[in-house]
Amino acid sequence: MRTETRSFFDTVRPAIDSALDRLLPAEDVPPTDLHRALRYSVLAGGKRLRPALCVAAYSIYREDYRPILPIACALEMAHTYSLIHDDLPAMDDDDFRRGMPSCHKKFGEAMAILAGDALLTLTFETIAACTQFEASRLTAAIFRLARALGTRDGMISGQVLDLAAEGLKLTTLELESIHRSKTGALLSTSVWLGGWLGGADSAELDALLRFGQKIGLAFQIVDDVLDETESREMLGKTAGKDRERGKATYPALLGVDQSRRYVRDLTEQARESVRPLGRRAELLIGISEFLETRGN
Amino acid sequence: MRTETRSFFDTVRPAIDSALDRLLPAEDVPPTDLHRALRYSVLAGGKRLRPALCVAAYSIYREDYRPILPIACALEMAHTYSLIHDDLPAMDDDDFRRGMPSCHKKFGEAMAILAGDALLTLTFETIAACTQFEASRLTAAIFRLARALGTRDGMISGQVLDLAAEGLKLTTLELESIHRSKTGALLSTSVWLGGWLGGADSAELDALLRFGQKIGLAFQIVDDVLDETESREMLGKTAGKDRERGKATYPALLGVDQSRRYVRDLTEQARESVRPLGRRAELLIGISEFLETRGN
Repeated sequence: MRTETRSFFDTVRPAIDSALDRLLPAEDVPPTDLHRALRYSVLAGGKRLRPALCVAAYSIYREDYRPILPIACALEMAHTYSLIHDDLPAMDDDDFRRGMPSCHKKFGEAMAILAGDALLTLTFETIAACTQFEASRLTAAIFRLARALGTRDGMISGQVLDLAAEGLKLTTLELESIHRSKTGALLSTSVWLGGWLGGADSAELDALLRFGQKIGLAFQIVDDVLDETESREMLGKTAGKDRERGKATYPALLGVDQSRRYVRDLTEQARESVRPLGRRAELLIGISEFLETRGN
Repeated sequence: MRTETRSFFDTVRPAIDSALDRLLPAEDVPPTDLHRALRYSVLAGGKRLRPALCVAAYSIYREDYRPILPIACALEMAHTYSLIHDDLPAMDDDDFRRGMPSCHKKFGEAMAILAGDALLTLTFETIAACTQFEASRLTAAIFRLARALGTRDGMISGQVLDLAAEGLKLTTLELESIHRSKTGALLSTSVWLGGWLGGADSAELDALLRFGQKIGLAFQIVDDVLDETESREMLGKTAGKDRERGKATYPALLGVDQSRRYVRDLTEQARESVRPLGRRAELLIGISEFLETRGN
């Protein structure tokens, strides 16, 4: 990882974590079990990639990134809600997440369903409370995020397509369309939101969105490669699970080597998208390079 | 039902239903299964009580109620999300809802979890899109609704408390606190939102909220009484279920007669709360009387 990317993560990750700690209800506030489940799942670690992307995009326009922290945290809440629900027995049925028992293994299914619901609700509550931003910017941010999480090319539609595709033979295009909605929409919206609340103009917002889409796809391919090549201890979640469940993956379709080449191409395209922003985009480019090399 | 209350429902219910039809994704938009599940659950009927309360409160301040319809629909979406998730096997495990198989019986558990998630997401998307209202009013509306649906005295905390209380002997106070969050918070917020977006002043908003809290509790007691006294065909959901699951109910604690007396008292207190609004509150009072007599 580049030094400046490393030092960005070293500063921003603790800032995100402590903002999350502040925004999540305390464990001693009732219902305590539920609040324990929320904090367990959100504070379990994770790369904080969506918050980092949001902060990095915002930092193109603003010196002080603290105002964007609650928005960045809301993105992590939304991401965690999706992990909790995806891990449920009726869905991907996964017992491990971030190296620990998944939420329903630890707290039971009812609590996991409610914990996911709670985090999704808290996502919007958190954004709506950000009075440091103009209200009209906030309503647009909420609308945009809800679309990215929703059923029309958003995260939920990706999960539906993903479940429906189990055991089927997909083309690369079909697989891409699943990932564009399942992980790409939220990742690219994280970048977009940072720019939007930072004050990017409309051409810049387009560039940021394109950047987010490219690295979103690259990120998913790397994930597939890691699922194929790494052990559970490295991943913190059950490994080899995709193949076992008959899920289409990039390595299965293209092989590991060509998947890695595709990741390099996408990362280059992402870099290309933000070239008009000049040196201000270095942080985003550094993150994209970090994501690229994660899978090597 | 009073003539004017009847004629209000006769006009507003179809208006709500057609606005819901318009706001929900069409069945032929992919993922079609999921969108079918959404429409199945939302358009299955139901009293549209929360939308009606919202429209009635808005109508105190505005002649034309059409601008509030999407907000009213968002409340119904949020309510339906909660019904779908509450009916899941891991939660209340209910096979019937509104006289039909519940969402997971019809579409499977994974789809029901995602349909609930989708409706909650669409709730906030719908409100954020209401540019007919001032943006700062909207962000406050979103914040308030998220709190009512959330984990701190909101709907989710009510569901957690409700699940935890199964088989336990509760006092009337404890039962009341469950219902205040589980159904009361969303009902009272529905009234509040109508007033807030209509332009009520702060004393009026307090009065509307109090009104909503009183009828919210009355509504739940009537529900308990009906669960005890009516058949499944009348209810459209499994009857006698509360007792079977060892849930505390008002009839179990107070008996049917005293429960009904309590409903009358609460309805009277609700009426009292909005007395300062004078004749403009007649519609709300009519709805409260309709709710009261539902249980007789």
